[in-house]
Amino acid sequence: MLFDFYSKTRSYSEEICKPLKIEDYIPQPTFFISPPKWNLAHTTWFFEEMILKQYLPGYKQFHPRFNFLFNSYYNSLGERTTRQSRGDLSRPTVEEVYQYRHYIDKHMQILLKSDKLDSILENLVLLGINHEQQHQELFFTDLKYTFSLNPLLPAYNENALCEDGEDTYKEFVSVESNIYEIGYQGEGFCYDNELAHHKVYLQPYEIRKDLVRNGEFLEFIENNGYHRFEFWHEEALNWLKENKITKPWYWFQQDGQWFQYTLAGPKKLNPDHILTHISYYEAAAFAQWKSCRLPTEFEWEAASDQFDWGKRWEWTESAYLPYPGYKKDKGAVGEYNGKFMVNQKVLRGSSVATSENHSRKTYRNFFHPNMGWQFNGIRLAK
Amino acid sequence: MLFDFYSKTRSYSEEICKPLKIEDYIPQPTFFISPPKWNLAHTTWFFEEMILKQYLPGYKQFHPRFNFLFNSYYNSLGERTTRQSRGDLSRPTVEEVYQYRHYIDKHMQILLKSDKLDSILENLVLLGINHEQQHQELFFTDLKYTFSLNPLLPAYNENALCEDGEDTYKEFVSVESNIYEIGYQGEGFCYDNELAHHKVYLQPYEIRKDLVRNGEFLEFIENNGYHRFEFWHEEALNWLKENKITKPWYWFQQDGQWFQYTLAGPKKLNPDHILTHISYYEAAAFAQWKSCRLPTEFEWEAASDQFDWGKRWEWTESAYLPYPGYKKDKGAVGEYNGKFMVNQKVLRGSSVATSENHSRKTYRNFFHPNMGWQFNGIRLAK
Amino acid sequence: MLFDFYSKTRSYSEEICKPLKIEDYIPQPTFFISPPKWNLAHTTWFFEEMILKQYLPGYKQFHPRFNFLFNSYYNSLGERTTRQSRGDLSRPTVEEVYQYRHYIDKHMQILLKSDKLDSILENLVLLGINHEQQHQELFFTDLKYTFSLNPLLPAYNENALCEDGEDTYKEFVSVESNIYEIGYQGEGFCYDNELAHHKVYLQPYEIRKDLVRNGEFLEFIENNGYHRFEFWHEEALNWLKENKITKPWYWFQQDGQWFQYTLAGPKKLNPDHILTHISYYEAAAFAQWKSCRLPTEFEWEAASDQFDWGKRWEWTESAYLPYPGYKKDKGAVGEYNGKFMVNQKVLRGSSVATSENHSRKTYRNFFHPNMGWQFNGIRLAK
Amino acid sequence: MLFDFYSKTRSYSEEICKPLKIEDYIPQPTFFISPPKWNLAHTTWFFEEMILKQYLPGYKQFHPRFNFLFNSYYNSLGERTTRQSRGDLSRPTVEEVYQYRHYIDKHMQILLKSDKLDSILENLVLLGINHEQQHQELFFTDLKYTFSLNPLLPAYNENALCEDGEDTYKEFVSVESNIYEIGYQGEGFCYDNELAHHKVYLQPYEIRKDLVRNGEFLEFIENNGYHRFEFWHEEALNWLKENKITKPWYWFQQDGQWFQYTLAGPKKLNPDHILTHISYYEAAAFAQWKSCRLPTEFEWEAASDQFDWGKRWEWTESAYLPYPGYKKDKGAVGEYNGKFMVNQKVLRGSSVATSENHSRKTYRNFFHPNMGWQFNGIRLAK
Repeated sequence: MLFDFYSKTRSYSEEICKPLKIEDYIPQPTFFISPPKWNLAHTTWFFEEMILKQYLPGYKQFHPRFNFLFNSYYNSLGERTTRQSRGDLSRPTVEEVYQYRHYIDKHMQILLKSDKLDSILENLVLLGINHEQQHQELFFTDLKYTFSLNPLLPAYNENALCEDGEDTYKEFVSVESNIYEIGYQGEGFCYDNELAHHKVYLQPYEIRKDLVRNGEFLEFIENNGYHRFEFWHEEALNWLKENKITKPWYWFQQDGQWFQYTLAGPKKLNPDHILTHISYYEAAAFAQWKSCRLPTEFEWEAASDQFDWGKRWEWTESAYLPYPGYKKDKGAVGEYNGKFMVNQKVLRGSSVATSENHSRKTYRNFFHPNMGWQFNGIRLAK
Repeated sequence: MLFDFYSKTRSYSEEICKPLKIEDYIPQPTFFISPPKWNLAHTTWFFEEMILKQYLPGYKQFHPRFNFLFNSYYNSLGERTTRQSRGDLSRPTVEEVYQYRHYIDKHMQILLKSDKLDSILENLVLLGINHEQQHQELFFTDLKYTFSLNPLLPAYNENALCEDGEDTYKEFVSVESNIYEIGYQGEGFCYDNELAHHKVYLQPYEIRKDLVRNGEFLEFIENNGYHRFEFWHEEALNWLKENKITKPWYWFQQDGQWFQYTLAGPKKLNPDHILTHISYYEAAAFAQWKSCRLPTEFEWEAASDQFDWGKRWEWTESAYLPYPGYKKDKGAVGEYNGKFMVNQKVLRGSSVATSENHSRKTYRNFFHPNMGWQFNGIRLAK
Repeated sequence: MLFDFYSKTRSYSEEICKPLKIEDYIPQPTFFISPPKWNLAHTTWFFEEMILKQYLPGYKQFHPRFNFLFNSYYNSLGERTTRQSRGDLSRPTVEEVYQYRHYIDKHMQILLKSDKLDSILENLVLLGINHEQQHQELFFTDLKYTFSLNPLLPAYNENALCEDGEDTYKEFVSVESNIYEIGYQGEGFCYDNELAHHKVYLQPYEIRKDLVRNGEFLEFIENNGYHRFEFWHEEALNWLKENKITKPWYWFQQDGQWFQYTLAGPKKLNPDHILTHISYYEAAAFAQWKSCRLPTEFEWEAASDQFDWGKRWEWTESAYLPYPGYKKDKGAVGEYNGKFMVNQKVLRGSSVATSENHSRKTYRNFFHPNMGWQFNGIRLAK
Repeated sequence: MLFDFYSKTRSYSEEICKPLKIEDYIPQPTFFISPPKWNLAHTTWFFEEMILKQYLPGYKQFHPRFNFLFNSYYNSLGERTTRQSRGDLSRPTVEEVYQYRHYIDKHMQILLKSDKLDSILENLVLLGINHEQQHQELFFTDLKYTFSLNPLLPAYNENALCEDGEDTYKEFVSVESNIYEIGYQGEGFCYDNELAHHKVYLQPYEIRKDLVRNGEFLEFIENNGYHRFEFWHEEALNWLKENKITKPWYWFQQDGQWFQYTLAGPKKLNPDHILTHISYYEAAAFAQWKSCRLPTEFEWEAASDQFDWGKRWEWTESAYLPYPGYKKDKGAVGEYNGKFMVNQKVLRGSSVATSENHSRKTYRNFFHPNMGWQFNGIRLAK
């Protein structure tokens, strides 16, 4: 059964690459984007380096340089290609990377069908699967970013992840002050940053049931919101100025009309659709303009049964910090979360690009406040 | 009585400049340092721009360009000299800046002795005084930074702020889990970021009674602490590498011995003295090496009656964020705190350089995690 | 016959791409490198934009965005992709670029076989052909650079451009002081920067018959040459320091032995082979260490019948400047040379990667003094 | 008599500082500017380090750290303060620097009045004097630059170096083709870069008798000259764009009128006065717009008896390169010129700020092509 989960996840990574041309596997236009080829190899490397090399007796590595080439950020596993140079590598070819995947899959099958499977190993495999699901989401958001820079504005797929709407409208839910329980509890898989389960006292608050729409954000723009310093953090103002930002990343105007680039190609902007690809800086400024604020991650979690979520990663006001009693895992796996716990913001929920079974209400995603290339949205609180 | 407080504060700013040569008033070696001349003028500008121009009928500004020259970061008060260029300005001369101060003091006396003094104005004056006290502390830390770069290693004053010791040693206080009250309550002056008073639930924790000493940190260095990635945040590792950091800023070795630069000149490092001038990155790595952590700002405040504090600003694990119910003030004064509430860490306590009456247990100082030029120290928790 | 020259040149560009994988057409690891796909399209764009659109009645452009995508630096032909972003473009695909080439070739055939062919047009076609030959050389040098960064050190072709030797050894030719004639004269094709033919007075000098070998440069390294400031220009010292340069670009040491990366893969360094991939800074420092100097471009040209040349582009001491009486062409073609005549050095000769018929003794190549990715070598003078 | 020359030069350096406030001695707003205090100390250091330490028996250095502090770029004399940090040093005080000067002067008097004075030493002293004269010119141009950045636009002196006119107007001199003799010949002092005397063949040319005026350059601006790429070098276009340059550095517009900042304060722009503070990039573009060009340094020298010069350093088309037969001096003195002979342009003549007796027609000044803070002008040729 673990092998079934493994297999399905691995197949899905290859399935979503089908619309690609070989050329699309290569470019990396900026440091935070990974090329599809690198994604396919790096998720495979995780199983080889963390699992097969440790647990499958007699395992022979596929290629002596692949540990160097496809390590992302694990300092304990040795040196690695610099993060900016992933797009400089034409070799190994795409075909060789698929061979690498199938070689690993074959050996993982041997391991997973053997009687070696204790709970430590099982947890590692689950981590590897969840890791690959994260990269499936990144596949979509990275490709969207790269394609959006191409003057030809290519489409990935005519039906892909079209931007979308919602039913309820601008209603707020009220939540009472109380002690709430926060963090993951139970037996399934979760990341170490969702532990330990603990108590938080919340003052009374209100939180909106639906997410902010394109039309509302357009009003902010038309109200000169990007140029009214009183709504913005000081660092946000510098970011706006240095990058000349006056609108969400994928929006553009042509002949007086607003469009947004989507994975189905450029589309006319629909004011009722849910706003997406917004940075924390923009989210926070928008909220201030609305005389609201963003919820904290605790407010979000405590109220999460009272609204629909799952279409956008939702920025919170909370900084990404360890929960009280947080323990990071030993060894390379311990580098997964803890070392990023400074200068980032927590996002809650999940998005249209998130893989199936890869979301829960205790999940803590995190990004730097200037990042908007994920399917990020805004939920207001007050 | 308000005028007495005003006068004393103003005089103290000039008194601490007495050991300076004219030349010392000018340089600004890096963007986060201000020259003494600029400090003297900028604190004066605050009273002119925020108070005299608004509240003293018939007031004539001292000089038409001084608003531009000595504004620090108030967007609502118009354009300003770029922050990096404060050391490029030889004019106005130091003497002219003292004339400016005395002109403002004369008019502040008229205003403060008149019957115009409602509570809004009183609060503004108190803010101006507290603002000047903050710059008195910056005077010492900025001068120390500038002097430390000079190959002549000049002394400010033979008796100045010598590094110091403490009595208790490595004992921890235990605190029970409970709901604690956090934030300022009462009638005296406080900043808007200390409001509103609210409740926080804390899990049980221990916090150390004394601050970390030089000797303990030396062990960390000798134990190769600066090169063991497992103790550091990912961003910290980049910071160490780019800046080639392997020791606290003011420490240096000569003939196999450790020294630190102080405002009394270079001194042999005393292992029993309290460690100072440490960044958050170093504080957090050190704490991990000790199998401890830094306290949150709430843990610090809840336990602050059970240990001595006041010699070092103490890094906390908490990000600088608005308290629930935080409201920023209207107008230019509202730019004092709120717009910095992203990507900074909270420090609690106060330091040997803090002006008298300028500390309380609810006070929230904040800096970026790489900053170590304040008299910052480490208090451990677990 | 012009069409034959056109055809052969165009075919050769495609022939040299045959050993490539699709993936190899894409990456651009640094701004001065162009991806093979871009080279193939850009040389084609030249014929479309400069010739077909102007001279073939009824010509329909292949794609409306290709002028934007494949313009290199012609300001008069409108906006263009930034030079650093050529590797970010996965589309058009390689196949589409070949379609583009064949579409243009078909129309060029119609034009060149028509009776439209006056001498202005003929000269433009010749310029386009020479332009494509220049990019054939860049194809090799750019690919070598990109492959050399790949930890797999792939080979382009087992027999490709192996490094090479020479017969004569360390002999100098003496040249008398006199007035010499410099620059192109005659009827064939030349660039505008080789005109006008003019007189130069030269003092007596000596120039070496053979080029500097690997072994001689190894002595320079072993003699600590990279660290002896007295041989280097001030700007060269900064360049060495910032880029941590201590050896020629493609050299590396393994187990105490010297190797160099070549297009046939890594090879043991042969001390008798001709040194290559050297910057002007290194060439000038080496010459000083030898108590020699580099020749001026006039000394080189005046003596060029007395030695063999054609294996390396040879750095001269001359800055790239207009000849007396230089006139740049009107329109876009005038942007080919003149606007680069500042801060670059002249190279004379040609290299193992230069296309057949693309060299003559008046040819002036030019690069910034830090550039070493061409097959550059050193000829000494005194 | 050498001592008289020494004394006058040394006094003049102090005399021109008399209008300064202490504060003016300190700031260094950019890397290519030196503070007056540093200039005064550095010229003194030259005599101490190059002469007194070598030639005056029993000489005791003034201060052990001054060699480190006031070395400019002599690699052979050990480490030095980084060039950008000269404005960070408040100590030694201005008074201490004057003490340093007088201490050196006293010892130089002993040396120069002794019988130790052979021709090597005499030449070194002459070099030190000429070096100090160069810094006297830099004193004016650097101060002008620093003051121009101060929003108060202070005046150095009401009568200082006012911008100036000329009599002749737009006439050209014709020069025949011939072999001309170039370089210094004779017994007086000259720099090593003016040697060796040699022959150059020149094609016929014309050179303008007067320098370009403000009014002519204004026409260039009004004719959109800064935005017409066809007149500019490619590197110049990048420079214009990055620095947003649309006019000469010290020009500014107020209420529709043009002004220029001068050392006598801001003045209305006089169209008949000679244009100044122009970079090579601007000079070359202006010349192209006029359908002219800049002269080479050889053309300038060969015709220099036929026009008045001495008010502006005049940009030439020539790159700064060694003359045939150039030999650089041994030891530290050899670092004076040769190592800068790449990527710079030669200027000929001298300027209103040049010290008396510090110009001759063979003098070769040199700067990077973007530099305009000297009193640079334009003489046209064709």
